[in-house]
Parts: sequence; structure tokens; C-alpha cells
Amino acid sequence: MARTVLIVGLGLIGGSGGMALRRRGWRVAYLDPHVSLDDARRASAADERVESVGEAEVIVLATPVDAAVALLQTLETNAVVTSTCSVMRALRSAARGAFVAGHPMAGSQESGLAAARADLFEGKPWFVDAEDARVDSLVRDCGAVLERVDAEEHDGAVALTSHLPQVLSTALAAYLHERDDLLRFAGSGLRTFLRLAGSDADVWAPVLAGNRDQLAPHAEAIAALVRQIIEGDPRDAFEKAQAVWRALEPPPR
Amino acid sequence: MARTVLIVGLGLIGGSGGMALRRRGWRVAYLDPHVSLDDARRASAADERVESVGEAEVIVLATPVDAAVALLQTLETNAVVTSTCSVMRALRSAARGAFVAGHPMAGSQESGLAAARADLFEGKPWFVDAEDARVDSLVRDCGAVLERVDAEEHDGAVALTSHLPQVLSTALAAYLHERDDLLRFAGSGLRTFLRLAGSDADVWAPVLAGNRDQLAPHAEAIAALVRQIIEGDPRDAFEKAQAVWRALEPPPR
Repeated sequence: MARTVLIVGLGLIGGSGGMALRRRGWRVAYLDPHVSLDDARRASAADERVESVGEAEVIVLATPVDAAVALLQTLETNAVVTSTCSVMRALRSAARGAFVAGHPMAGSQESGLAAARADLFEGKPWFVDAEDARVDSLVRDCGAVLERVDAEEHDGAVALTSHLPQVLSTALAAYLHERDDLLRFAGSGLRTFLRLAGSDADVWAPVLAGNRDQLAPHAEAIAALVRQIIEGDPRDAFEKAQAVWRALEPPPR
Repeated sequence: MARTVLIVGLGLIGGSGGMALRRRGWRVAYLDPHVSLDDARRASAADERVESVGEAEVIVLATPVDAAVALLQTLETNAVVTSTCSVMRALRSAARGAFVAGHPMAGSQESGLAAARADLFEGKPWFVDAEDARVDSLVRDCGAVLERVDAEEHDGAVALTSHLPQVLSTALAAYLHERDDLLRFAGSGLRTFLRLAGSDADVWAPVLAGNRDQLAPHAEAIAALVRQIIEGDPRDAFEKAQAVWRALEPPPR
């Protein structure tokens, strides 16, 4: 018998999950008032549309954090519920039944089902804060690499590796908004740096609010480091930065 | 008769220029103690190696800013000299004879002749702060789009569109240096954001020093905006940032 999943929110993450899971034989239902069944089927992202949470082995919350927290507080189900949001602590505290906070380290500055792809999670880490065989199997069938983590450790880490880059990119782009005559001086470096600035406020506002305590001190430390790079000798920072870049990205050729 | 150029510094910029100009029939000589004539020829980047500045119609300074300033102060030549550095004012003040401060808006976090490509400048803006027919023709033969600009305006603009993204990327990467256990939480967003962090201190230290007065106030304003995004409602900043992103990058499809 096919395994069944109900995906709440058929956007970039939910849609990509649906596509990948259907390929691995899962039956995919979804709940999303903004996506018609025609569109979902055309994208091969789901088999069935539901109006309320029904039976499924796994329920995946692929909505912004605030909506996922609200759902967790009201959901009555025997299924195991898992999230795909960029913070874990807020969801962990809101959960009552069987729940695994999850976070696939994959995304795009684009959003919506139109940007979804079956291979979005392929080979990417997918963090989970608890052990559940159904969720583990779903994560692996999405093509992702399962990694277990403590919710607190996760939120502290992604403050630096995900949320702060987002904030810095958004801040510089917003600062350029009143100065759009300068955009003719934009090179490929700026385009790359601002890729994250295309991200959506609906997704990010609740993430930043949910991780404010972690973010604020790091942001001040970065501001101090920026000051030091501009006012002093930047060589030490450049050398450390290059080492981190090399550790992240295997050198070309 | 072939037009002649002497390129000082056969790295990413100088090498790419040499490749493009040779294709358009220029005879390319270069001065670079670190690049053998064999390597230069193998890369199709030059025809001839020289040990000191000789005759050429145009001399292109494709070295870091500090070396270019030192050269400009001592160079005795009848050629028109042009630069390719990321700041203009420092070079403009150091120049004595016929000089055009130039800045091709093309680059890479990689450096050296190995990263050079004949099409690096293709369709990219190349700013020049003065009019000279020989330099204009060199810029166009590199495939770039010539744009004239005042040196002061240029340095003010690139502080925001180029130097600040570089500093922010380097700062975050350097900050992660003592925290490399967090790199397992790196997603594609961080990789993109940190692409600039691979850049070289030798190139950037003199650029930042040469544009410090422009950079410092913008850096403080960005720090304040970051604080506001984290502590307050980030929606306004996200919406402005998305508008800038869209203006920069034509939407996909």
C-alpha cells in the first residue's frame, strides 16, 4: 500500500516535496486554498486536494512559521506532524502530539509552486530534531540527507548561517531603494550578494521574530567587524573569510 | 598596422583584456614578473613579454590600486594610460600625463590568469572618467559597454554597489571562522552570500583604504537598518529590497 502524506502549503517547499514523494510512490494530498487541483496535478505535485486535515501517515507543514505554529496549536490528528520552517524552537513549544521539527536546507529566492522542482532537496541536508521512522523515510524519499539536531542548537546555528545573510542582503537592497540611480553601477558581485533580497516578507518576518534573541547579538558583532575592516587593516578578516569560503565550496577544477 | 597595448598585471582582468583584444587584432605586450611568456601564450592572453614599460598606444594598469598609484607616479611615457581598479579618485590624483581612470564592472571571486576569459567584459559596463579615442576603442574591443562618469560620483556609487557588499560578505565569513562547526548548517543561501568572501586581500585592502570616507557612513546606516529589521517589523525593508532585486534582475521566464 502506498504511503500517504498530507502537505499543508503547496508552495516552493511543499510543492517540491510533493513532486519528489510522488516519484517514490507516495500518495500526496494537499491543503492550500491558493492552489487549484489542476495546477497541482499539472506540476505533478499532488494527487488530491483536501479542505481540512484528514488521514495520512505524515502531515507536513510547509507554511510560514506563524501559520505552522497556529496549526500545531489546533490540530487534532493521529498522524505524525513535521515542519519545514527555518526555526524549530517556536514549533517545538507549540506542538502537542507526535511532532518532529524539520528544516530542509534548500530553497530559492523564488517562491510558490511555479518555482518547485522534484530535485530541490537532492543531496541537501534536512535537519530533524527527533526520531520518527515515518518522517525519516519521508525525508530520505525527498532525496535529502537526514541530520539529527537539537532544536536549540539548530536555531542558534541558522541565525548565523541563514537568517543573518538574509537580513544583510535585505538591508543593503532596501538601502539602495532610495538610491536607484546607483543601480547602473551594479556588477555581478552585487547581483550575487542581493540574490537573497528577492525573498518574501511573509516567510521571513515570522522567522526573524522567532529567532530575534539569537540574531541581535550576532548582528552587533558583525557591525563591529565591518567597522574594523573599513577603519583598520582588513587583511586578517580577508584571510579568515577566504578560508571559510574554501571550506564551504570545493575549489573549481 | 595592429594597435598595440601594454598590460601591466596579467591576472584575471589583465589576462581577460589581453584575450579579448588579441581576438580583435591588437598586439598585446605585458609586464608581470609572475606570469611566464609560455603561460601567457598558452592562455592566448599576450604576444610578448616586456621587462619595463615600452612603446604602446595604450598602457593598461591591471594591478591592485596601490601598485597602480605607485606606477602612475613614476611612469614616463607618451602612451595614454588607463586603470581598471575599483576606485578612481586615488588614481586620478596620482596621474600626470594622459590618463583615463577606468573600471570594468566585471570580475570574479577567483583571481589570476587561470580565471581569465575572453568574454569576461562582454556586455558589461566599463566606466571611464575622461574621453580618449584610444581608450574608448580598447574598451569597446573588450566587448564592454563604455560609460562615462565623474571620478567622485563613481567612487561614491561603488562604495555602495561593490565595496560594501564585499565588506559585508567578508565580515560574515570571517565571523564564521571561529565557528566552523556551524558550516554543516550552510545552505545555498549562505554559499551565494559568501561568494564574494573568496576575494583577495591584496586587491581589496587598497580599494577599501582608498574609499574609506565613502564607506564608513554607509556601513553605519546599514548597521542601523539591520537593527531595525531584527528588532522591528521587517516588512517595509523586505518590500523595498524585493523591488530593488526585481529592478536589477529581469524575472525568470
